[in-house]
Amino acid sequence: MRILVIGAGKSTAVLIDYLLAQAAQRRWQVQVVDRELELARSRVGDHACGTAGSLDVDDAGERDRLIDDANLVVSMLPAHMHGPVAESCVDSGVHFVSASYVSGDVSDLDQAARQAGITILKEAGVDPGIDHMSAMEKLDGLRERGAKIRAFETFTGGLVAPEFDDNPWRYKFTWNPRNVVLAGQGGVKFKHHGRFKYIPYHRLFKRYERLQIPEVGEFEAYPNRDSLKYRHSYNLRGIDTIYRGTLRRPGFCDAWDCLVQLGLTDDSESVERIGEMTYRDLVNSFLWYDPAMSVELKVRAYLKLDLNSAEFDKLEWLGLFEPIPVGLSRGTPAQALQRRLEAKWSLQPEDRDMIAMLHKIEYELDGRAYREESSMVTLGSDSVRTAMAKTVGLTAGIAAKLILTGGIEARGVQIPTSRDVYAPILAELREFDIRFDDRVEEIE
Amino acid sequence: MRILVIGAGKSTAVLIDYLLAQAAQRRWQVQVVDRELELARSRVGDHACGTAGSLDVDDAGERDRLIDDANLVVSMLPAHMHGPVAESCVDSGVHFVSASYVSGDVSDLDQAARQAGITILKEAGVDPGIDHMSAMEKLDGLRERGAKIRAFETFTGGLVAPEFDDNPWRYKFTWNPRNVVLAGQGGVKFKHHGRFKYIPYHRLFKRYERLQIPEVGEFEAYPNRDSLKYRHSYNLRGIDTIYRGTLRRPGFCDAWDCLVQLGLTDDSESVERIGEMTYRDLVNSFLWYDPAMSVELKVRAYLKLDLNSAEFDKLEWLGLFEPIPVGLSRGTPAQALQRRLEAKWSLQPEDRDMIAMLHKIEYELDGRAYREESSMVTLGSDSVRTAMAKTVGLTAGIAAKLILTGGIEARGVQIPTSRDVYAPILAELREFDIRFDDRVEEIE
Repeated sequence: MRILVIGAGKSTAVLIDYLLAQAAQRRWQVQVVDRELELARSRVGDHACGTAGSLDVDDAGERDRLIDDANLVVSMLPAHMHGPVAESCVDSGVHFVSASYVSGDVSDLDQAARQAGITILKEAGVDPGIDHMSAMEKLDGLRERGAKIRAFETFTGGLVAPEFDDNPWRYKFTWNPRNVVLAGQGGVKFKHHGRFKYIPYHRLFKRYERLQIPEVGEFEAYPNRDSLKYRHSYNLRGIDTIYRGTLRRPGFCDAWDCLVQLGLTDDSESVERIGEMTYRDLVNSFLWYDPAMSVELKVRAYLKLDLNSAEFDKLEWLGLFEPIPVGLSRGTPAQALQRRLEAKWSLQPEDRDMIAMLHKIEYELDGRAYREESSMVTLGSDSVRTAMAKTVGLTAGIAAKLILTGGIEARGVQIPTSRDVYAPILAELREFDIRFDDRVEEIE
Repeated sequence: MRILVIGAGKSTAVLIDYLLAQAAQRRWQVQVVDRELELARSRVGDHACGTAGSLDVDDAGERDRLIDDANLVVSMLPAHMHGPVAESCVDSGVHFVSASYVSGDVSDLDQAARQAGITILKEAGVDPGIDHMSAMEKLDGLRERGAKIRAFETFTGGLVAPEFDDNPWRYKFTWNPRNVVLAGQGGVKFKHHGRFKYIPYHRLFKRYERLQIPEVGEFEAYPNRDSLKYRHSYNLRGIDTIYRGTLRRPGFCDAWDCLVQLGLTDDSESVERIGEMTYRDLVNSFLWYDPAMSVELKVRAYLKLDLNSAEFDKLEWLGLFEPIPVGLSRGTPAQALQRRLEAKWSLQPEDRDMIAMLHKIEYELDGRAYREESSMVTLGSDSVRTAMAKTVGLTAGIAAKLILTGGIEARGVQIPTSRDVYAPILAELREFDIRFDDRVEEIE
């Protein structure tokens, strides 16, 4: 068997190590290709079952040749590049696994993939991925016991591990910074107690809820863009409450709301002459003109922040009031903000990250009502074997192995929501200590 | 001479009367066409110089035939329909006048129009139109006297006349309701004291300023979408302050901000099952679930409104807390809100409207600094000869006459910002009592 891994960037180390270890046991071959040959080489090292190569994924001829040689492709490319790769896989009868969301062009391949007898498994990462699998395992188990699901809420956060949680925001970037800056734009929708609920973007970070996860403590969560679509994939049509949220540490949302209120997260409009501006100027461009008031005073007055406000301290800590040049020749407020955040929120080489996930389910069983909480916490081991790399890489790697060994037999375009897909993956993830702890209490 | 008026809807009565009167003096003919023949007929009556016809403007053959017969076309169609009409005018060597904004497809016709020896005059209404002309007359006059312009601010409002200003919002629709509901979405930009300023949409209605116009009293103004582009058309490049705003009566902006904060002005997302909802349900869909709190209590708490809040009273007066069905089978919050506002803010047959315009200019002259305010107020005479119909219709009508009689000689695509265009139009508008009053004071 030959596995082709396309993309050797961030978060692929654990995936490639896992596949190489499997290859050593099973006499398989793993080929790792990337636009940068050196990166691919560094991931493979001198492993006997691995080879490294370079690939420009836009070179259709070379891409198709490599795919044609393989039995299965794991793509770690950015999401928008998956369409042509998945298509080549169908043409060559090669299985395909990736951690990113199903897009329209990929879901159109379902029929063709079934006819070719291959599996296209998408959303085989952590979020999406482990969230789907753990939720479905819990929901299917309850339904099998005869329970009626009343409410389903689920929360995930990519954060910094407690020991390294050392800045006032209690947050560092462990995943795509741009997605963090733009989170929730366009507003959100979900369902609570039988009612559809909407929150416009500018109110989102005022509507967080407080949560606790044993061992790791307090969190707050703001709602994700669209929780309603999960009614279908989780077979929860008609459910009274469905809500998906993002976890942050306490204090984050109130401070982030200040950035939203000022206008610093806006990505729709370029700022005039941003090349000549400092962050202090940029903040001031959202405030009225008053030569007798400092930028700091205007911010306090505009956002009604008290003298000893923790939110104001967080803004100050970011350096937003300092005469630091924005350093972009053109850009939106959101792009400028992202630059400043990257300077302050980057994981340091010694830092470790953390992925936390929490499901809250309310159900009725035998005339009684229960609330079950199920949570997972995974810590990074170092700056390469991060929690993100582990949870994404092991999920995709295990899925790839199971497809090749017959442990997953479903064909066509799949996401890991059916039991024959999620059960064997979750079982093996537990061996790597990626597991959920459950707590049930009777309510009412 | 033959003038073709396309479109006989709202706000065309004064235009058509003016053109018919000119035609009677000059032995011209005016043809008025509309999709609805009856509407065109009612505008023309039995005037000896007028004929009425029906035209489906998408019928290119008939449209071109009518245009080809004319010497000048006045189009009162919606803005997006002007492209093909203006093109036919160029092909047939026929002048073209309209009150709406220049669009890309029309400005591309400039060269061809010059070659054909015709004038395409756009933005010949009130806003845009009278605002351009009165501003340029003032600015050109000051510059001619050697003044250096430091600041230019301009404000326009279409409102209800003081005598009929009888609802708590002190506002009724006198123009396109959808534009009122969506005003400012995407945020605004302007320049104040040498600094570019931005306000995100969700802060816009908190950043109004207070103004006064002699005789008609107090107003508040919120900034328009993009004030910066007028630096070019008004020859104000390098000016320290440029700001365009919309006038409302005091109290409007704080109450409108409540609708924005709730999310009711959102036009991006359809509401699930809106067909089954009342306005009370719709408001509740933006609030958290709490069976112990009424919708009214939640709104007060969410928006931090006092017990005797004037804003709350305005929301209540709109009927937003009542079990009135929304009555749309699908739609966005903004579309639902518009329906409710149309039910409450419609001009009644006995109501009269008002257009108010105010320019504030600061300049230096002979070593001294001055502030000049220049304002115009026009009242409607009845529900047909509204202030809107007068200001738009007379401007477009006078412009049409001047083009045909040689009073305006500029050719190509024009907006009324050059003296040879605006001076004769403003002079004749004064005869109709559409005039500005000026007040100058020395400052500093």
